[in-house]
Amino acid sequence: MIRIGVDAMGGDYAPKEQVEGAMLAIKMIPDIEINLFGDEIEIRKYLTNEERIHIIQSGYVIPMGEKNPIKTIKEHPESSMAMALSSLRKDENDAVVSSGATQALISGAHILVRRMRGFKRTAIAPVLPSVSGKPTILLDSGANLEIRPEHMLQQAYFACVYAREVLGREKPVVGLINIGTEEGKGRELDKEVFQLFKETPLFDFYGNVEPKMVLNPPCDILISDGFTANIVMKTIEGTAKGMGDILKKELKASFLGKIGAMLAMKNLKNFKKAISAEEIGGALIYGLYRPVIKAQGASKAYGFYNGIRQAATIVRNEVFPKVERYLSENKDESNEE
Amino acid sequence: MIRIGVDAMGGDYAPKEQVEGAMLAIKMIPDIEINLFGDEIEIRKYLTNEERIHIIQSGYVIPMGEKNPIKTIKEHPESSMAMALSSLRKDENDAVVSSGATQALISGAHILVRRMRGFKRTAIAPVLPSVSGKPTILLDSGANLEIRPEHMLQQAYFACVYAREVLGREKPVVGLINIGTEEGKGRELDKEVFQLFKETPLFDFYGNVEPKMVLNPPCDILISDGFTANIVMKTIEGTAKGMGDILKKELKASFLGKIGAMLAMKNLKNFKKAISAEEIGGALIYGLYRPVIKAQGASKAYGFYNGIRQAATIVRNEVFPKVERYLSENKDESNEE
Repeated sequence: MIRIGVDAMGGDYAPKEQVEGAMLAIKMIPDIEINLFGDEIEIRKYLTNEERIHIIQSGYVIPMGEKNPIKTIKEHPESSMAMALSSLRKDENDAVVSSGATQALISGAHILVRRMRGFKRTAIAPVLPSVSGKPTILLDSGANLEIRPEHMLQQAYFACVYAREVLGREKPVVGLINIGTEEGKGRELDKEVFQLFKETPLFDFYGNVEPKMVLNPPCDILISDGFTANIVMKTIEGTAKGMGDILKKELKASFLGKIGAMLAMKNLKNFKKAISAEEIGGALIYGLYRPVIKAQGASKAYGFYNGIRQAATIVRNEVFPKVERYLSENKDESNEE
Repeated sequence: MIRIGVDAMGGDYAPKEQVEGAMLAIKMIPDIEINLFGDEIEIRKYLTNEERIHIIQSGYVIPMGEKNPIKTIKEHPESSMAMALSSLRKDENDAVVSSGATQALISGAHILVRRMRGFKRTAIAPVLPSVSGKPTILLDSGANLEIRPEHMLQQAYFACVYAREVLGREKPVVGLINIGTEEGKGRELDKEVFQLFKETPLFDFYGNVEPKMVLNPPCDILISDGFTANIVMKTIEGTAKGMGDILKKELKASFLGKIGAMLAMKNLKNFKKAISAEEIGGALIYGLYRPVIKAQGASKAYGFYNGIRQAATIVRNEVFPKVERYLSENKDESNEE
């Protein structure tokens, strides 16, 4: 049995959507059991079935808009989030899923979950929707604002193992986010990464990819430093939101537009679904001892279920042991702490 | 009369759309005259009216996909682009508009047009569409990959004068593109810029703006280093294109979707227009002695006309002299070449 720890109290609609997502996961995935961390009375309001689900009482909920996440997570080991994270260290769970406050989760993971041996910079890897329907892994979504090429090499390798084992890509290809496609474009960092990736035998390197292709990239993994990749992710979000608003305004502006929108309702909904993070699952933190998945704060049951499914697949297909094995066999390359 | 130099041969659909755009501008804007640089025989094919339009024969066209733009522009002073740019130095025009190869135009502007006295780093400022319909100025779209806070202050001030004089914003507000809204977020550069902008009496500083708000920002001007802003611009482009493709696919996927799309055709077209650069005009190069406008390579007549209109407004409202006056009165602040 794969044991998934769930922070039932984190998220805009917690614990309802988290508990319902967990029950959906139990129904759909036969080889998992779920440990729900949270307030038992609150959780039981939404629990209709206890098969392979256990509740562990917690004493605090980290607020979603927490201004001082590091302090808060340190001061509240009894919070549902801290307890879920600590359960990894105690070998009580194989993975953790939370849609709680992002910074608190990342800080908490650093403090409470030990790092994978030899992995230099933990990273957060969300997945992006794409025109083809095949999601793209984005690295790194904000953990490392200033970073060295060797660290990005480790992260890209991790993403390749993930893409192969979880997304089913046979020969994952890595692309470097840049302002032009030609070799030699970009900042010093980008030029160094280009050289390093070009020479590595670890994975296929496509070269530079401009964000003009961000929803239709010629690769499985898009990588940059944490600042840039976070900017890319938030620009996609902002553009999708803005375009949605403009489209809505336009369709409402005339009678024919309204009729047309009504007829195409189902398609417009599918459109929204295709560009929504809900469908795709959460962001994975790379470089810890065991997987921690950050599901969207606004996750509904289905989105949260997808995060659990993702966690189970990572464990089942041994993504972390495979990366760890590579790191222990290639200690010389990781020459700096 | 405001004299606009037009590179009639640069652009994906040159010279047809450029010449037609120029004629539209002559018709709509009474106080301009236009000097068309290009092949007279080609230009005359599309010229239906010679009122206030003059043709200056050029001997070469810089190709759109030019791989070595700096070399090419240097080697071809007889090209339509180089001749148009040189006309500024010779005081034969008050502004230049071109939809030719971007890098060639920027390099050419640096080589052939002298800089504004005291302006440290030229910048390229495109405008972004927005949900409200009021365009946002984006700085800098790729001229300065690594830059200092003082240079960004000058660029932001320039943008404020532009926003006031050309876009009619009474009290323009500047926002710093960042990965979080709180003070102290981002890289070292971002923290330094935040402090500098917070203390400046030159303009209103909103603070950090996440690109989640990129199409609906709480400010008139969004600024970052050239790498980041270029990534933002291209991510918007990629997301808009990708979302358009997904929407099209979805609407074609069912009979009702197709009917709905047909009925809402006009609205969907307006939607496309709202997010298109055509409507808004070109990118302005900041910090030269006189304005050079880069219209989109794919400009049609209307988009190119908008570029000419923008150039005329900049000259009419004395944007450049106003910035120059500020720079000459504040020489102490510009303490480094």
